[in-house]
Amino acid sequence: MSTVGQVIKCKAAVAWEPAKPLSIEEIEVAPPKKGEVRVKIFATAVCHTDMYSLSGKDPEGVRWPIILGHEGSGVVESIGEGVTLVQPGDHVIPLYIPECRECKFCKSGKTNLCSLVRSTQGRGVMPDETTRFTVKGQQAYHYMGCSTFSQYTVALEISLAKINPDAPLDKVCLLGCGITTGYGAATKTADLQSGVTVAVFGLGAVGLSVIQGAVARKASKIIVIDKNPKKFEYAKKLAPNAELTCLNPDDHDKPIQQVIVELTDGGVDASFECIGNVEVMRAALESCHKGWGQSIIIGVAGAGEEICTRPFQLVTGRVWKGSAFGGVKGRTELPNLVQDYLSKKLEVDSYVTHTFGINDINKAFEVMHSGDWYVMQLIWSGASLSSFWIDLSDLM
Amino acid sequence: MSTVGQVIKCKAAVAWEPAKPLSIEEIEVAPPKKGEVRVKIFATAVCHTDMYSLSGKDPEGVRWPIILGHEGSGVVESIGEGVTLVQPGDHVIPLYIPECRECKFCKSGKTNLCSLVRSTQGRGVMPDETTRFTVKGQQAYHYMGCSTFSQYTVALEISLAKINPDAPLDKVCLLGCGITTGYGAATKTADLQSGVTVAVFGLGAVGLSVIQGAVARKASKIIVIDKNPKKFEYAKKLAPNAELTCLNPDDHDKPIQQVIVELTDGGVDASFECIGNVEVMRAALESCHKGWGQSIIIGVAGAGEEICTRPFQLVTGRVWKGSAFGGVKGRTELPNLVQDYLSKKLEVDSYVTHTFGINDINKAFEVMHSGDWYVMQLIWSGASLSSFWIDLSDLM
Repeated sequence: MSTVGQVIKCKAAVAWEPAKPLSIEEIEVAPPKKGEVRVKIFATAVCHTDMYSLSGKDPEGVRWPIILGHEGSGVVESIGEGVTLVQPGDHVIPLYIPECRECKFCKSGKTNLCSLVRSTQGRGVMPDETTRFTVKGQQAYHYMGCSTFSQYTVALEISLAKINPDAPLDKVCLLGCGITTGYGAATKTADLQSGVTVAVFGLGAVGLSVIQGAVARKASKIIVIDKNPKKFEYAKKLAPNAELTCLNPDDHDKPIQQVIVELTDGGVDASFECIGNVEVMRAALESCHKGWGQSIIIGVAGAGEEICTRPFQLVTGRVWKGSAFGGVKGRTELPNLVQDYLSKKLEVDSYVTHTFGINDINKAFEVMHSGDWYVMQLIWSGASLSSFWIDLSDLM
Repeated sequence: MSTVGQVIKCKAAVAWEPAKPLSIEEIEVAPPKKGEVRVKIFATAVCHTDMYSLSGKDPEGVRWPIILGHEGSGVVESIGEGVTLVQPGDHVIPLYIPECRECKFCKSGKTNLCSLVRSTQGRGVMPDETTRFTVKGQQAYHYMGCSTFSQYTVALEISLAKINPDAPLDKVCLLGCGITTGYGAATKTADLQSGVTVAVFGLGAVGLSVIQGAVARKASKIIVIDKNPKKFEYAKKLAPNAELTCLNPDDHDKPIQQVIVELTDGGVDASFECIGNVEVMRAALESCHKGWGQSIIIGVAGAGEEICTRPFQLVTGRVWKGSAFGGVKGRTELPNLVQDYLSKKLEVDSYVTHTFGINDINKAFEVMHSGDWYVMQLIWSGASLSSFWIDLSDLM
C-alpha cells in the first residue's frame, strides 16, 4: 500500500526531556510539504553532539520532545510540492548544513554555511514553523534538520545529498557528520599541502578522519595526541606509511604544546582540535609554527566556554580558524566523498565498532558515554542492512 | 676628517631606567663589525612601542641603559667587514625585522618574520653578544636592532632597507614602522580584494594606514572606530571618495561589534585592531561576517594580557590572524613603498603633526602620552632636514 500523501506511523527514539534516556515510541510522520522530502532512514550513527543536546547544556538549546540524530542515511519515500532535486527511491544522506545555492553564503563561494533556514532549523521546526512529527498526540521537534533517530523523517530537499545507490547505507551514514568533518577540515579548511607537519588532538572519528586527510595530502609528519593510548592503534592503521608520532599528555610533565614545538623544530604547520575542550584548542594553536602555522577548531565547546591565548601568538603569524562539516558543501561535494569511499580512497568501514538495533539506542549512548569504545561512531541498525530494514519494518 | 674605523662621539637620548625621562648624553658609537653598518640617523619618529618599552612593562623586557627608537631613517656612514648590501652614502631605513633571505622563515615565502638574529636582538646586543654603544664608560644596549634615538647607530646589513635617495628622510622614516604596518596589514596580511567591507579600530598612524590600504584595494565600505572624534577628520581626508562610517563606541549603548554587524548585514569582510587592547581585539573579531570574515590583530597588548572569544566565532568561519610590520619584507618590499610615496600613491607627509629637536624628545613623549595629538607620529628632527642635520652636528 502506498504511503505517499499519508501520515506514516513508525518507531522513533524520542527525547522527552533533558538528561533522560531516549524512549522508543510510535510516532506519526506527516507527509512532506512544499520543498520537503520524507526519507525512510536506513541507518544512523550516534554522535557526541546528540549526547550534548540531550544533556540540555547545548547553548543553542533544543525544544522537547525532540527526535535527535543527524548522521544518517536512507531512501526517499515521497516528495512534497515542487521538489525537483530528489525523487522517490533516491539514496540520500541528510545534511545538517543545507545547500540552497541561493543565499549570500552559498553564492559567496567562500563557505559551506548556507543560512537559508538557519533560524527555523535552530528552533526545531520546518520553514512553515510547524513540525512533521507527532508523538502521543503532541508535536515533537526536529533536530538539526535531520532527526535520524526515527524510521521516517522529513527534511528539506536542499538538506539532502543524493548519493550513489551502490554505496552501503549502513556505512556511508558516517559521512553525514564525523568522517566528512575531519577529512574536510584537513583537505578543505586547512587545505593541507604536500610535506606539511600536522598535529591532531583527539582521536575520535573526527580526529581519525583528519589523519586520513593528512595522509591524502601527503603530510610529512603526523603527531596524534590522546589520553587514551588504545586510540593510537587505530591511528596507525589509517596512516601505515606516514611518519606518525603518538603523544599521551599524561606521559609528559611539560605542556603538550611545548613538547610538540620541541619535536618539530618550532611547531607544526597545521593543528586540529577534535574534542571540544577549550584548553586543548589553546594547546593546538600554540603547537603551531610561528610565521605560518594554522590551527583549526573542529570540536564543539560547552555553553559559554571561551578560548584564550596571548595575542602575540597571532601577531607572530599563527592563524586561528574553525571548521563546520569540514567546510564541505553537502549537495555538491558529499556525493564525491561517497565515490571516494566506493573507490577505496576513503576508509569508512572500520570506523564501525558497535552495532545496535533501534531498541538498544540507549546502550549505544552508554557505550559512547563510558569512553569504552575504540572509535566513537556506532551504528544502531541491525547486524546487516537487510535485517535492519526488516527489523524496522517489524516494528511498524 | 674621516670617521671610518673610529669611535664616534655623538649625542643620544639614553634611557637609564624604566619610567624615567630620557637623558640626552654624549655617547660613543664603536665602528661596525663583520656584517654591521654604522648609520648617521637623520630623523626618527617616536612610537607607542618605544613608550611601552620605556615603561618597563614590556613582556620581552629590555636591559638598561638602552637607546630606544625604531622608526628612523639615515645615511650609511661606514660598513664593517664583508658588508655588500649597502655602501657609505646609501640612504637607509633601519628594520626591526631583518631579512636575511637564508633562514627557514625567509625561505618559506610565507612570512616576513626573519629569525636569524631574534635572540640577540631581543637581548639588546649584536650577534657577537656585545653592544656598540658606550655611555659614561658603561655599555648601553641596542633596541629592536635599530636604536634610532641616537645621532649614530649600528645595525646589521640585513636590517637595513636601501631606499631611493630622492626620498625626504624626515618623512620616509615613518615607513620604518607605523605606516608600513597598517598599509601592509591591509594589502598583504589581509590581502583585501575589491569591494570588501572593512572595519578599522583605532585611528593612530597604523589605523590611518590601514585605511590607505583599504582605499588602494577599492574597499566598498570602511567603518572607522575611535573614542576621539577628532581622529575622524583625518580618516576622511585619507578616504575622500570612500563610503566611510565613523563610530564612537561612547555614542552607543550596544557593544560596538553588534552595531557593526547590524550596519553591515552580518559583519564586515575584514577588521583590524590597531590599538593593543585585548577587549577591542575581541570586538574586532566579532564584527566580522560569518563564513569568511577575517580579523587582523596589529596592536601590541600589555604583558600577560589575553584575547578571548567563544570558539563558535571561529567554527562559523571567522579567521583570527595577526600582522607584524604589515607582513612586509623590509629589504625587498620597503623600497617599493618609498617609491609609492614618491609617486604619490601613498600619503606620508600629513602624518607629521609635531616636530621636535633632539633635546626636546621628552616633550614628544609627553605629547604622545597626553593623547593631545591628531596622529601619533612625531618627528624629533629640527624644522627642516638641513637644520636638523646641522642641529645634530652642533651637539657633537
